[in-house]
Amino acid sequence: MINSKPYVIGIDMGGTNTVFGIVDARGVVLASNSIKTRKHSNFNDYIDELSFELNRLIASIDAQEKIFGIGVGAPNANYFTGKIEDGVNLPWPTPIPFAQLLSDKMKLPVAITNDANAAAIGEMTYGAARGLKDFIMITLGTGVGSGIVVNGQLVYGHDGFAGELGHVIVKRNNGRLCGCGRTGCLETYCSATGVARTAREYLEMSDTPSLLRELPIDEITSKDVYDAAIAGDKLAKAVFDYTGQVLGEALADFTVFTSPEAFVIFGGLAKAGDLILKPIRESMEKNMLSIWKGKVQVILSELKEADAAVLGASALGWEAKPMAAPEATIAPEATATV
Amino acid sequence: MINSKPYVIGIDMGGTNTVFGIVDARGVVLASNSIKTRKHSNFNDYIDELSFELNRLIASIDAQEKIFGIGVGAPNANYFTGKIEDGVNLPWPTPIPFAQLLSDKMKLPVAITNDANAAAIGEMTYGAARGLKDFIMITLGTGVGSGIVVNGQLVYGHDGFAGELGHVIVKRNNGRLCGCGRTGCLETYCSATGVARTAREYLEMSDTPSLLRELPIDEITSKDVYDAAIAGDKLAKAVFDYTGQVLGEALADFTVFTSPEAFVIFGGLAKAGDLILKPIRESMEKNMLSIWKGKVQVILSELKEADAAVLGASALGWEAKPMAAPEATIAPEATATV
Repeated sequence: MINSKPYVIGIDMGGTNTVFGIVDARGVVLASNSIKTRKHSNFNDYIDELSFELNRLIASIDAQEKIFGIGVGAPNANYFTGKIEDGVNLPWPTPIPFAQLLSDKMKLPVAITNDANAAAIGEMTYGAARGLKDFIMITLGTGVGSGIVVNGQLVYGHDGFAGELGHVIVKRNNGRLCGCGRTGCLETYCSATGVARTAREYLEMSDTPSLLRELPIDEITSKDVYDAAIAGDKLAKAVFDYTGQVLGEALADFTVFTSPEAFVIFGGLAKAGDLILKPIRESMEKNMLSIWKGKVQVILSELKEADAAVLGASALGWEAKPMAAPEATIAPEATATV
Repeated sequence: MINSKPYVIGIDMGGTNTVFGIVDARGVVLASNSIKTRKHSNFNDYIDELSFELNRLIASIDAQEKIFGIGVGAPNANYFTGKIEDGVNLPWPTPIPFAQLLSDKMKLPVAITNDANAAAIGEMTYGAARGLKDFIMITLGTGVGSGIVVNGQLVYGHDGFAGELGHVIVKRNNGRLCGCGRTGCLETYCSATGVARTAREYLEMSDTPSLLRELPIDEITSKDVYDAAIAGDKLAKAVFDYTGQVLGEALADFTVFTSPEAFVIFGGLAKAGDLILKPIRESMEKNMLSIWKGKVQVILSELKEADAAVLGASALGWEAKPMAAPEATIAPEATATV
C-alpha cells in the first residue's frame, strides 16, 4: 500500500529566521520558505503567521492531504513537554507551548526537539550517520550543541534535556566564563565564539605577526580566523589547532560514556574542514583510552547546509503523534519512544 | 500460565572468588556457593569445575528443569561477543569465550557483561533504581566502574564497552597516573585506591596531626581512612571531602550527557555513607548546570552487599538467549536488546 501521507514538514526556528519546508520520505525538500522569528510580540501571532505560510506552501504543491506530521527544531525545545523551556533568547515568555499551539492550528501531529537533536535525527535519516546505531552529533555554531544516539535511539534523558555536551567543564581552573554562568564549559572554547575568543587571547598574549592584527580586535569572528588560516596565517592556524585539541580531548572523554562509532561534526565551524578535523582527530587519538584507539571516526555532516536544519526537523515529523487535548498533561511515557 | 522455568543463575566472577547463586523472579537467592577463580591454569578446567558446582547447587534444590538462563558479571566481559576481552588480570589468555563455553557445558542460555553493568541491571531489577528509566550506576571499588541506563536500557555502545566513566579525565594537568597508562582519570581519585592515595598525599604535604600517622604510610587503605574519619580525624575527613568534591564535579558533567534521574552509588566506598555522600551532593549541586539544579538524586545502592553481585548478574540471566553454534559469529543485532 502506498502511504497516503507521503510528506512531512520540517521547521527550523532560529533566533532570527524560521525556515520551513515540505520534505518527502527520501529527504528531498519539495518546497520551502521562511518568516522572521521576532516580528510578533505575541507568540500566538507568530503561530498564526507560521500556519498561514505553511498552508500556502502546502497548497503551492497540492499537498493538502499528504502531510504526515510536523517536526520542529528550536532552541531549548523539549521533546517530552512539546514546549520551548526557560533560558532562551526569544521575545516571548517561556515555557512556550509550541507543539500544542501549532498542532491545534494545523490539525496535524507536531513533535519538537532542540536544534542539535534535530540535526542528529536528520543525519541518521539522510546524512553521514545512515546505518549507524551509536553516534554523537556535535554542532559547532554560536554555541556547542549535541545530539546523542544510543542503539538507534536519540537520548532525551529523564526530563528531555540530555545531550548538553557544550556544557561539560573542560577547564576546571581558570576557565572562560560561559553564558550559563559557570566557567570552563566546552562551548567557551570550541564554538565559533570560542574560536574568536582564542584568537583575541593569542593576539593579546604574543607579538606573533598575523593578518588578524589588521582587524579591530573586538570584531574578529571565526570567519576572519578561518580566512586568515587559509591564507597561511600561522597564528590563525594555531587557533584552530588549539580548538581542535580541546575538542579532541573532550571527544575522547565522551567516548567512554556511550562508545559511539562516530562523532559527526556539524555547523559553521565544520566548514573549516581539515583545519579543524585534523587537530580534533590527533588530539582525540592521543587522549583515547587504549581499547578505543583507532576505532572511533570523526566525520563531517553530509547534510546540505541550506537544507540541513529543515531536513533534520522534518525527520522528526515522521515520529510526531497526535497531541492530547490542550489542557491535558502529556506524560513522558506517551511520547518517549523515538 | 506459570513460568515453567522460574529461576535464573547469577555468577559473579571476581579476581579471587567466583560466587554464584540460584535466584527467583523476586530476587531471592535460593542457594549459593563459590569457587576459587585462579585454581586452574586452563580455562576449560575452570568451566568444568564451575559447571560441576552449578549442577550440584541446582540438584540441591531440585531445580534441574527450572533454570531459565545464566547471567554472568565478569571484568571486561563484553555483552555482544560473550567474551572476556583483553586487558584483564586473569590467569588465562584473552579473549576468553566465557558465554559460549559455559552455555555448551550447561546447555543453558548465558549472557555476560562487566561487573558494573551487572550491578546496574541488578539495581534496576531489585534495588534502588526500580522504576527508574534513566540512571547511572557508579561503582566505587578498587577502580571506578559504571553502568549507564537510558530509557530503561543498558548502554553498551557500538562495541559493548560503553560506560567506562572511571576513565574520564578529571585532572587534565598534573593528574595521577592511572592503570590505563594515562593520567588524571576519575578512578585515580575516587576509587578506594584513590582515597588511600589522597590520604598519603595529605599526610606528606602537611603536618596536620592525624590518627593515620600511626600507620606505615604505604599500607594505608581506604578502610583505615574511613575508621579514622569515623573517630573524628580531621585529615581523614578532609580526604573524604576531597574525594566527594572530585566525584561531584564529575557527576555534574555526567548529567549533561544522559540527564539521569539519579546516580546510584555502589561498592566498598559506598559504605562510608554520609562521609562521602554529603560532599558528593554538595559538589554536584555547586557545579550543576542550572536546569538540573536540585533535580538529580545521589542515592546508595539498596542491594545487600553479600548478594549484590550475584543478584545483578542473575537479573541478566532473564535476558540470556540460546547461543549460536560455537564457530558462528554473533552479530550485535542478535543480542543488543536489553
